[in-house]
Amino acid sequence: MIKACIFDVFGTLVDWRTSIAREAQGILSPLGISLDWNAFADAWRNQYQPAMEEVRSGRLPFSKLDVLHRRNLDVILAAQGIDSVDEATRRHLNLAWHRLDAWPDVAPGLNALKKKFLLAPCSNGNISLMVDLARRNGFVWDAVLGAEVAHAYKPMAIVYTCAAAAFDLAPEQTLMVAAHSSDLAAAAAAGLRTAFVARPHEMGPGLGEVAPATRVDYAVNSLLELAERLGD
Amino acid sequence: MIKACIFDVFGTLVDWRTSIAREAQGILSPLGISLDWNAFADAWRNQYQPAMEEVRSGRLPFSKLDVLHRRNLDVILAAQGIDSVDEATRRHLNLAWHRLDAWPDVAPGLNALKKKFLLAPCSNGNISLMVDLARRNGFVWDAVLGAEVAHAYKPMAIVYTCAAAAFDLAPEQTLMVAAHSSDLAAAAAAGLRTAFVARPHEMGPGLGEVAPATRVDYAVNSLLELAERLGD
Repeated sequence: MIKACIFDVFGTLVDWRTSIAREAQGILSPLGISLDWNAFADAWRNQYQPAMEEVRSGRLPFSKLDVLHRRNLDVILAAQGIDSVDEATRRHLNLAWHRLDAWPDVAPGLNALKKKFLLAPCSNGNISLMVDLARRNGFVWDAVLGAEVAHAYKPMAIVYTCAAAAFDLAPEQTLMVAAHSSDLAAAAAAGLRTAFVARPHEMGPGLGEVAPATRVDYAVNSLLELAERLGD
Repeated sequence: MIKACIFDVFGTLVDWRTSIAREAQGILSPLGISLDWNAFADAWRNQYQPAMEEVRSGRLPFSKLDVLHRRNLDVILAAQGIDSVDEATRRHLNLAWHRLDAWPDVAPGLNALKKKFLLAPCSNGNISLMVDLARRNGFVWDAVLGAEVAHAYKPMAIVYTCAAAAFDLAPEQTLMVAAHSSDLAAAAAAGLRTAFVARPHEMGPGLGEVAPATRVDYAVNSLLELAERLGD
């Protein structure tokens, strides 16, 4: 019945917090900037939903997440009183989101799932960001779907249904996989099947969803477990 | 300088004529239908540009190539006086375009090119069609770009520039690879670099372009030769 699995990426497949903290420290500390790097990652991520809400509400036209990330970076640097960072450094730091590391189960899990299912990211990240993460981490996608293809941001229903339609599938033939209940609730409301993957340390040690807060079709602790549950 | 290679697919990567003739014969001859199967493939393909022109001109809204192929199939079956083919058979036959075989140099050529370049199809075929051809023939794409992502059909400039932009590249950092001079001329006009691949038997024995009829950056006889020329 399920023909394709589509995936949330930030938090579900990649550990954005540790990676962003590492990248920010590597780029900013040689400039003499000293910060709590995990808090810097959190501050940047905290601007994520409000920026997308500007697009979802229609106040901003659709733009790639890279553009929103850059706007958000300028906001948090200013908020921290750091105005000395030059344009080239800001550009390089902004692409830290293209250099995130995957949770260790993801590459083998995707390889197992690929035997039975079509696979694509269904992320709010733009295509080039998804491409760079795939190259870095060995993700094997059939296509790159999600916000940039739908020209809208999750949790708008069109992003999920557009991904299913790109594979010529009905929503109920498509499994949305995410570590966030809100994402899965929106996918289910759009007619998709859903799988929750626990990422208990996404927002820091012990700070991540350990169980779904919404009704899901599957709840697992890794993509390898998901592949087993789906009959790999 | 070149960071990505994007590819025309029908004719350039896959032998549509032989494959469509084989599929049509396999599906229609058990129904007692006897035709010149190569001529059937040609007739179907001859409806391709006029159907896309309906979209390019704005007379039809953008729709997936699968939809245009189906419209064209009904036209040619009616033109041949074959009205007895039922709906399920028409649907199955229409997806013959998802079951085309690649020229033998393509899979190894893409694997060689992938070491240095981002790779994507830039075809008028829809995403699901590209996904099925990739699975069937072992194409290794970083993303599936082209008409469905751009919501327009080649040779409109937006299709080429949209593919480059999806990779965060300028047109001149992107190499369009095709077996058709018209496709390459349009890509060059949009600012892309271009590579011609000879497919001398695309439209039948001896019926294909053997040399570019427009100025190109590279002219080769296979994707393996292209990989060598680009310094693989």
